[in-house]
Amino acid sequence: MEKSYMSVFLLLVVLSCALAKDAPKKETKETKETKPKLPQTLSRGWGDQLIWTQTYEEALFRSKTSNKPLMIIHHLDDCPHSQALKKAFAEHKEVQKLAEKFILLNLVYETTDKNLSPDGQYVPRILFIDPTLTVRADITGRYSNRLYAYEPSDISLLYSNMQKALKILKTEL
Amino acid sequence: MEKSYMSVFLLLVVLSCALAKDAPKKETKETKETKPKLPQTLSRGWGDQLIWTQTYEEALFRSKTSNKPLMIIHHLDDCPHSQALKKAFAEHKEVQKLAEKFILLNLVYETTDKNLSPDGQYVPRILFIDPTLTVRADITGRYSNRLYAYEPSDISLLYSNMQKALKILKTEL
Repeated sequence: MEKSYMSVFLLLVVLSCALAKDAPKKETKETKETKPKLPQTLSRGWGDQLIWTQTYEEALFRSKTSNKPLMIIHHLDDCPHSQALKKAFAEHKEVQKLAEKFILLNLVYETTDKNLSPDGQYVPRILFIDPTLTVRADITGRYSNRLYAYEPSDISLLYSNMQKALKILKTEL
Repeated sequence: MEKSYMSVFLLLVVLSCALAKDAPKKETKETKETKPKLPQTLSRGWGDQLIWTQTYEEALFRSKTSNKPLMIIHHLDDCPHSQALKKAFAEHKEVQKLAEKFILLNLVYETTDKNLSPDGQYVPRILFIDPTLTVRADITGRYSNRLYAYEPSDISLLYSNMQKALKILKTEL
């Protein structure tokens, strides 16, 4: 009962984030009115001390050449659940430390690669890709309807999933 | 005679940049040794006061919804000719002012869209795309072998090409 309650809750979350994203009015307004909050950073608040890649192409290249797994965070500035997860992610010292072992990319716009949306284009959504450039679709969160979604309360699960992404990589080498 | 001299010169330039880009050793070194020069910005020095998009997908979306033309600058951090053009671009007040009328993207990694390399993937290379998402292949620099390349001394031509990208857009609407 509690689980299905959670699913409904998460569905609402995702819907609200999706709605915010699709509204072109919002976008135009932002483009016109927002002065750049200088400097615009690649971290976007997910860990200002970490090295972030700018694009998916760059991230794939760096993962392959450095043999580090790639962690891709899809999020939206105007999605409160993305913001809440970001806060938890940025403030969690162990997560930040472990993140150094990854090639990191956070995106507010979807790529054209369908492999990055195995079960849809919701946010927040975190995917791992190994250096052979295979999406690790087996590393999932706790929501069966949105396998790659995490709530702030799931930060420990995210941490262990990050360990998993690093561990299996080593086993395979 | 002077023209062919220039072509040879530019070819050498492009070759040296291409070589720098292809060297995986260089890349690995950078990934391992470079501490983030905080903060990593989206401008990458091409105009810190301007609003820059992060990815090609974002840039296309913003161009379409804001009805502004898109200007894409391909460059490399370890290409001296990219650096020289960047300096000229960032220091040219009129260019910086006019750039505000564009959706802006600077990329150090190529996208998978072949439309962005009509005559090859050299750097530096500047392309304009109109809000209907058509590459303005007609807006070129002065080098017949690398149509979208600019040297620092071509900054005035670049300025007038930016005006062209804005003017034709208005005529078409």
